[in-house]
Amino acid sequence: MKKLQNIIWEYVSVLAGGLLVILFFAAGSISVSSADSHAMFEPKFNAAGEMIRPEGTREWVYIGTPLTPNSLNAPEAPFPEFHNVYIDPESWGHYKKTGNFRDRTVIAKELTLVGDTAATSGNGFFMGEFSGFEIAYKSTKHFPNEPGNWAYFSFGHQPEPYNATAAKQPVAACAACHIAAAAEDMVFTQYYPVVRAAKPK
Amino acid sequence: MKKLQNIIWEYVSVLAGGLLVILFFAAGSISVSSADSHAMFEPKFNAAGEMIRPEGTREWVYIGTPLTPNSLNAPEAPFPEFHNVYIDPESWGHYKKTGNFRDRTVIAKELTLVGDTAATSGNGFFMGEFSGFEIAYKSTKHFPNEPGNWAYFSFGHQPEPYNATAAKQPVAACAACHIAAAAEDMVFTQYYPVVRAAKPK
Repeated sequence: MKKLQNIIWEYVSVLAGGLLVILFFAAGSISVSSADSHAMFEPKFNAAGEMIRPEGTREWVYIGTPLTPNSLNAPEAPFPEFHNVYIDPESWGHYKKTGNFRDRTVIAKELTLVGDTAATSGNGFFMGEFSGFEIAYKSTKHFPNEPGNWAYFSFGHQPEPYNATAAKQPVAACAACHIAAAAEDMVFTQYYPVVRAAKPK
Repeated sequence: MKKLQNIIWEYVSVLAGGLLVILFFAAGSISVSSADSHAMFEPKFNAAGEMIRPEGTREWVYIGTPLTPNSLNAPEAPFPEFHNVYIDPESWGHYKKTGNFRDRTVIAKELTLVGDTAATSGNGFFMGEFSGFEIAYKSTKHFPNEPGNWAYFSFGHQPEPYNATAAKQPVAACAACHIAAAAEDMVFTQYYPVVRAAKPK
């Protein structure tokens, strides 16, 4: 009986060991897919080198809304009118830890027209319909020669559907202004209290 | 030897069966905790029945920003001035499927003062510092007698730190206005294009 027990325990040990190995690899594959998830948010480019419009940005982390109403920028604001600005969730996690916009940071700006100008909460500006979509993308790989490695893409100032692809804007069109925020890696953090509050002290 | 093999296989079978049972319950507890994850976002209440201020709302799903500047609402807007509005992620998932704000929906409103009124992007309104925090919470369990089962909480119109707890506002203070949006379950969806776009057709 002693020998029988030994044999059984040997089998049991091998079986349990095998299961541990399986569980180890399963856990490993989970953590690998998590570490690699930034790729989820990286924009893709077509054969012509144009960016394919990223989707799902309305569920990214919101950082703020500058508002430039057409009524204050006759005949029309350069970016009409609300600018809802988001950062991709992976880069946000990195920012909260380091205070830096990491390589491959994506910032999305969705424009919305002013709708009503009065409501029960007071006089002001209330969002109407979507009116445009733009992306800023920081990538040393894609933009080694752009200031701060940021490039800017506009998918149209228009109602949905926005354009499916966009070519990189010339430096004079976007970076030339953003460079004023060089101390904050070309992001106008002075208009984004959410970002300022999250920056490590 | 035949008998020994049978005994070993019996042990192995029992062991494997036991492991399957363990895995089944482990998977069950994972899916239970997932199905129950809405509890992550449900506000807690103290012994006095006051809501304890929820944290992490800046990473919820953003739905829009009404703006009521003090300059248009002398001497001061009822809600100064930008209203950054978020919905808890679980209730957002439910809304996208059903078009309804489910029981236990939490909507957070963080107020921000106007900072600059001109930038390279034009004349307008740019966010300055945070200025207040409020919650709307729909709960049949907690508020069986409130209109739509929504109750409203203000944690102060002030810079951070906001108040740690808040008592439910009287119906006349909040619900009396929100009831104008009764067709949209007391949420002013006309000011939130993100919500309108997500509503199933």
